[in-house]
Amino acid sequence: MSPKALIPRLSRRKMLAVLAALPLVSGCLLRPDAASAQAAISANPLPSWNDGATKQAILDFVAAVTREGSPDFVPLAERIATFDNDGTLWVEHPMYTQLVFVLDRVKALATQHPEWKDIQPFKAALEGDMKTLAASGEQGLLALILATHTGMTVNEFQTIVLDWIATARDPRFKRPYTELAYLPMIELLGFLRANGFKTFIVSGGGIEFMRPWTERVYGVPPEQVVGSSIKTKFQMRDGRPELFRLAELNFIDDNVGKPVGINEYIGRRPIAAFGNSDGDLEMLQWTTMAGGRRFGLIVHHTDAEREYAYDRDTSFGRLDKALDAAALNKWTVVDMKNDWKRIFAFQ
Amino acid sequence: MSPKALIPRLSRRKMLAVLAALPLVSGCLLRPDAASAQAAISANPLPSWNDGATKQAILDFVAAVTREGSPDFVPLAERIATFDNDGTLWVEHPMYTQLVFVLDRVKALATQHPEWKDIQPFKAALEGDMKTLAASGEQGLLALILATHTGMTVNEFQTIVLDWIATARDPRFKRPYTELAYLPMIELLGFLRANGFKTFIVSGGGIEFMRPWTERVYGVPPEQVVGSSIKTKFQMRDGRPELFRLAELNFIDDNVGKPVGINEYIGRRPIAAFGNSDGDLEMLQWTTMAGGRRFGLIVHHTDAEREYAYDRDTSFGRLDKALDAAALNKWTVVDMKNDWKRIFAFQ
Repeated sequence: MSPKALIPRLSRRKMLAVLAALPLVSGCLLRPDAASAQAAISANPLPSWNDGATKQAILDFVAAVTREGSPDFVPLAERIATFDNDGTLWVEHPMYTQLVFVLDRVKALATQHPEWKDIQPFKAALEGDMKTLAASGEQGLLALILATHTGMTVNEFQTIVLDWIATARDPRFKRPYTELAYLPMIELLGFLRANGFKTFIVSGGGIEFMRPWTERVYGVPPEQVVGSSIKTKFQMRDGRPELFRLAELNFIDDNVGKPVGINEYIGRRPIAAFGNSDGDLEMLQWTTMAGGRRFGLIVHHTDAEREYAYDRDTSFGRLDKALDAAALNKWTVVDMKNDWKRIFAFQ
Repeated sequence: MSPKALIPRLSRRKMLAVLAALPLVSGCLLRPDAASAQAAISANPLPSWNDGATKQAILDFVAAVTREGSPDFVPLAERIATFDNDGTLWVEHPMYTQLVFVLDRVKALATQHPEWKDIQPFKAALEGDMKTLAASGEQGLLALILATHTGMTVNEFQTIVLDWIATARDPRFKRPYTELAYLPMIELLGFLRANGFKTFIVSGGGIEFMRPWTERVYGVPPEQVVGSSIKTKFQMRDGRPELFRLAELNFIDDNVGKPVGINEYIGRRPIAAFGNSDGDLEMLQWTTMAGGRRFGLIVHHTDAEREYAYDRDTSFGRLDKALDAAALNKWTVVDMKNDWKRIFAFQ
C-alpha cells in the first residue's frame, strides 16, 4: 500500500494533529525543547545571522541540495551534517567546559583521596595552578579524567553530569554553561533539520559528558552524538545488569579521529560539516573533498567584546592549519563579530 | 512560534504531500524500500504472524507504551528497539552469511596469495574443509576475516560487499541472502517504527558488512546499525582523504559486548530487544531488567521444513542459556513453526 493510499482514512483534524507533531519535511521528530526547528520554517530562517556572504552561502547550499531536479540534489537519507561542539556550538574559553567539570570533580572527590594534595597533576588541579596543569600535558589531563570519570556505572555518571551542568556557572557570563550555546548555530541546526538533514555532534569531548543534555540544548538526541570515550564493562551486580566505566581509553574523537568516528558511529559520509579549530580539519576534509556539492564551515572567533577573539595562538581551540585549509578549499568562514547579530539567547 | 501556528499557511494539497512523504506517528522518514511501515498501519499490522499469545504479547506491549495516559507510557524519544541480525532478522544456517562471504573472498583473493593453499586456516577455507576450519576456532576465523576484510578503503569494501550480496545465492533456497530475511520480523520492524520506535540492529556481525544493505532490506539506515568492527585510519592519498581498513580488531559486538555497544553507539537503554541466541542474552538482560514496562523476545527456530530447527546443540546461533533466561524473565519466545504464517516473502 502506498502512503498516499492511507490519507483518505484520516480526518482533516487528525492530519492537523499529525502535522503539528512533526517537523515539516524533516528527517526526525520534533524534540520539544528544540524550538529552533520552528524558527527555521519562518520567512527568515536564520534571524540571528546578519545578511551577507556567509548567511547566503548557507542558504544557497541548502537550496541546492534540497531542490528536486537540482543537479546538486541530495536524497533525504544522505543529508548528514556533523557539528563540532566546543567553540562551534558553545563557548570553549577560557578553557573547555569539560575541563572545568574535571577540576570540579577533582575538588569534590579530594576528601576521599587525601594523597591527591601531594601528587601531580592532582595538586595543581586542587590549587587551580593552571600553569603546572598545562605543563603536565595530555598525560596529566588523561590522569585527571580517568580518576574522575571512571569507577562508577554509566547511570551514576549521567547523574553526576546532569547535577553539575544544572548548577555550575561560567565565571564571566554568570550563566549555566548550556546557556553559552550560540544562538545562530542552534538556528542553523534547526534550519538544516527542517530541510531534512540529520544533525550529529562529532566532538573531541567525552561522549557521555555531552549526551545527557544535547537533546535539550541543541535538539540533538544522544544517538546522534559522537565523542571521545572510555571503555565500559557489562556485569551483573546484585542480580541487576550494570555497565561500569573503566579507567581505560576507548576512542579519541579528534583530528584524524573525527572521520574515523563518523564512519564508525554514523556509517555515512556527511555532506556538510561545521567546526572551529584544527581539531576539525580532517572532518572538514573528509566531508567536503568527496565530489558533489558539499559544505564546510568554520566559526572564527573574532568578537572579544561579546565572546572571545582567538585563532592561531591559543591553547583551547587553535585555528591555524584549518584556517589556511578553509581558503584553499573554499570553506565558509564565519566572522563572529560581523556575521552574528546575536551570539547568546540571553543577550 | 508553535508548529500549530504554521498550519494555516499550508494548503490542504501541501499537507497531503507532506503527509504522503512522512510515516504516520513515526520516528523517522519513510524509507522507500521499507514497505513494512505502511503495512503496519493497516488493520492487521502483523499479517505474517498467526494469532496467539506471541503476537498478542507484542501488540499488548506496543499499546501499553504508546497510549497517552497509560501507566506504562514511554515518550517517543525513548522508544528504542534493538534487533540482533543473524537468526533474528535473517537465516544463519547452515553457517553465518558473513562466513560464506569470508570463504568466497578467500577464494577470490587466492590467486594473489599462492601461499594460502599450504597454510591453515586458508587451506581449509579453499578446500571447503569445514571440520578443520571449525577446529581452527575463533583465532582461525579472525585470521580469515583480517586477511579478507582489510587493506582497502571503506568505500572499496562497501563496493565488494554490495557486489557480493547482489550475486551470491543461498544453496538451499537458491535466493540472494537478503531474500532470506524473515517477513514477520520485517513487519515487526515496520510496526514498531509506525508506533514511534527507532529501530536499531545490534549484531555480532561486521558493521560494514551490514550497513550497505540494511536500509533496503529492513528499513534500518546505516547510522542505526551497531556491529563488530576493525580499526580504520584516516590518511590523505593523492590529495584525497581516505579511510583505510586496518588488520586490527576494534570491537566485538556480541554477548557482553552488546550492552556495551548499545551504550556506546546509541547512548540510550532500549525498551525492547529481539534476539535468538545466547549471544543476545546480555542485550536482553540490559534491556528488560531495568524497571518499567520492557519487552524481550527470542526467535526459537522450530521449523526444519520451512527454515531450520535448532537450539541448544548447534555451532551457529546456539540458544541455551538464553532460553532458560527467557522462562525466568518472562521474555516472549517465538515458536517459528506455529507463530509465523509465512517466513519469507518469496514463499
